[in-house]
Amino acid sequence: MKAPFTSLAGFRAVFETLPQVDAEAVEAATARNETLTKPKGALGRLEDLAIWYAGWIGDGRPALERPQVAIFAGNHGIAARGVSAFPPEVTVQMVANYRAGGAAVNQLCHVAGASMTVTELELDRPTLDFTVSPAMTEDELVAALAAGWEAVDDESDLLVVGEMGIGNTTAAAAIAAALFGGTAAEWTGRGSGVAGSALEAKTRVVAEGLERHGDALSDPLEVLRCLGGREIAAMAGAIARARVGRTPVILDGFICTSAAAVLHALTPSALDHAIAGHVSAEGAHPAALARIGKEPLLDLGMRLGEGTGAIVAINILRSAVACLSGMATFAEAGVSGG
Amino acid sequence: MKAPFTSLAGFRAVFETLPQVDAEAVEAATARNETLTKPKGALGRLEDLAIWYAGWIGDGRPALERPQVAIFAGNHGIAARGVSAFPPEVTVQMVANYRAGGAAVNQLCHVAGASMTVTELELDRPTLDFTVSPAMTEDELVAALAAGWEAVDDESDLLVVGEMGIGNTTAAAAIAAALFGGTAAEWTGRGSGVAGSALEAKTRVVAEGLERHGDALSDPLEVLRCLGGREIAAMAGAIARARVGRTPVILDGFICTSAAAVLHALTPSALDHAIAGHVSAEGAHPAALARIGKEPLLDLGMRLGEGTGAIVAINILRSAVACLSGMATFAEAGVSGG
Repeated sequence: MKAPFTSLAGFRAVFETLPQVDAEAVEAATARNETLTKPKGALGRLEDLAIWYAGWIGDGRPALERPQVAIFAGNHGIAARGVSAFPPEVTVQMVANYRAGGAAVNQLCHVAGASMTVTELELDRPTLDFTVSPAMTEDELVAALAAGWEAVDDESDLLVVGEMGIGNTTAAAAIAAALFGGTAAEWTGRGSGVAGSALEAKTRVVAEGLERHGDALSDPLEVLRCLGGREIAAMAGAIARARVGRTPVILDGFICTSAAAVLHALTPSALDHAIAGHVSAEGAHPAALARIGKEPLLDLGMRLGEGTGAIVAINILRSAVACLSGMATFAEAGVSGG
Repeated sequence: MKAPFTSLAGFRAVFETLPQVDAEAVEAATARNETLTKPKGALGRLEDLAIWYAGWIGDGRPALERPQVAIFAGNHGIAARGVSAFPPEVTVQMVANYRAGGAAVNQLCHVAGASMTVTELELDRPTLDFTVSPAMTEDELVAALAAGWEAVDDESDLLVVGEMGIGNTTAAAAIAAALFGGTAAEWTGRGSGVAGSALEAKTRVVAEGLERHGDALSDPLEVLRCLGGREIAAMAGAIARARVGRTPVILDGFICTSAAAVLHALTPSALDHAIAGHVSAEGAHPAALARIGKEPLLDLGMRLGEGTGAIVAINILRSAVACLSGMATFAEAGVSGG
């Protein structure tokens, strides 16, 4: 769907009239769950997940059939500062790998039964180095938010957003520090594999960015514009689109969480339709999830991005929904109640 | 396959000549993993899982295509002591529910792409009350071990064992206490939902069982015979069959872990082919997993049995295997290495 905004003010206005969860569907799912052939509460968190999904989809006995994984790729001016273990050309090379079916995300989408879209965001025009100037102009930010919004398939019944962008854990760390407070060191991590003096240099880049834009960082969208990247903004736009369309979302790792946190800072209810798929091995991810109030489903030490952790979680949610909607009741099965 | 034993001595002999993991397949999988288009280690525990699976299947680039969920059902003499929130007739009712496709396990098998077998173990002839006499005779134990062994499909490339048996968390608690030491209270939990005075009574039943058979409990198979149940013995038999056939196993909750722990007590390498699918909400499960040296993949507060937690973990393992075997290498994809 065409994005309903052409300015940052227009994007802000989206959050003034967010739809709510379908209370009737929540009630119906909760009532049905009580009647199913299992001890009460015995499916643990799967029961909560299914009821949450029912509420956002608006069906007390829902199906989960069309999950979409939307990958966004962008390039970062700060990559020239040596903040990554990989050279910047890897972004475009990995996009080719996605299209050829050779990346982790392709294999995981297959196992999860998910469709995948890849959106390249001006890969030949990196954002500016945020230690020198804002990463994006307002028009560039709006274009990236709109690209994310428009990448969401209206027929999807679940959305995962993923990213590729050499340098983007640096941008995500700067966003997290700006939104949540604390030092650059608290939010800066190893990314694709930097350590020692390279990690110190990466931390300094984050600190320089925070210092450079200090006055502007009281507004979440200015944080995104000054410190973010196009793929991070696109993820925020896609998550916002899903919120407006009441499409449930599974969040991925640290970069995705930073994108989501921008919306959370605009209004906390902006992420009511989202759960955390996993906690990554990126050091600051647990703290970032705690700040947006999300408990991860998986803790497998993953730190790949591309949406991978969230995609592994899709089948957990599908399992939850399958139990709610497919199980027999005590009465139907002729089983004596507890 | 017909079980290769007709006595407990014959079952013991199985553990004298266990096959080892395929070191060449481990080496090939490890080498391949290093070349794949991702930062080193970025798939975290998925990488370890895939290499472990490759080693047991004996293929450095494996597929996971035929997972089997083997459910075993048995009835327990101690159910008459009021140790469960459900009446004993629920065992046979739930077996009918499995066959009709209405239980949680049916929905989860569908999502996991797993076949399911259900083996009823003389449901009209419960084990004896273990506070009065051994739960089973030696012949009964051998028959149950053999039933488990023979339920495993030789074509399966992954095994999950699950159970149904009103009263079986009581038997599992007694087994755990006998194998691991400690008090009845440390190992006795809420099962399908007992609390307060009912939980106290359940704990006393476990303590009585431990006291009644004190002298016999130095031998793991005597623990299983005196305190176990037919479905618990069958799970042990199935896990042993998988070990001999080098079929990887995902363990489920507390009852499954107690069955596996009997084999672990015979020889710790008996569980090298097994991983823990999840940690359940049954209070003693974390301690039981720690005693057999297994780190769970999932922690979702599940406590249903039927293999359910392990089945949810199947798609995590499938994701791991898909990445190892399906991803492009840096060279194939033309991606610059890190």
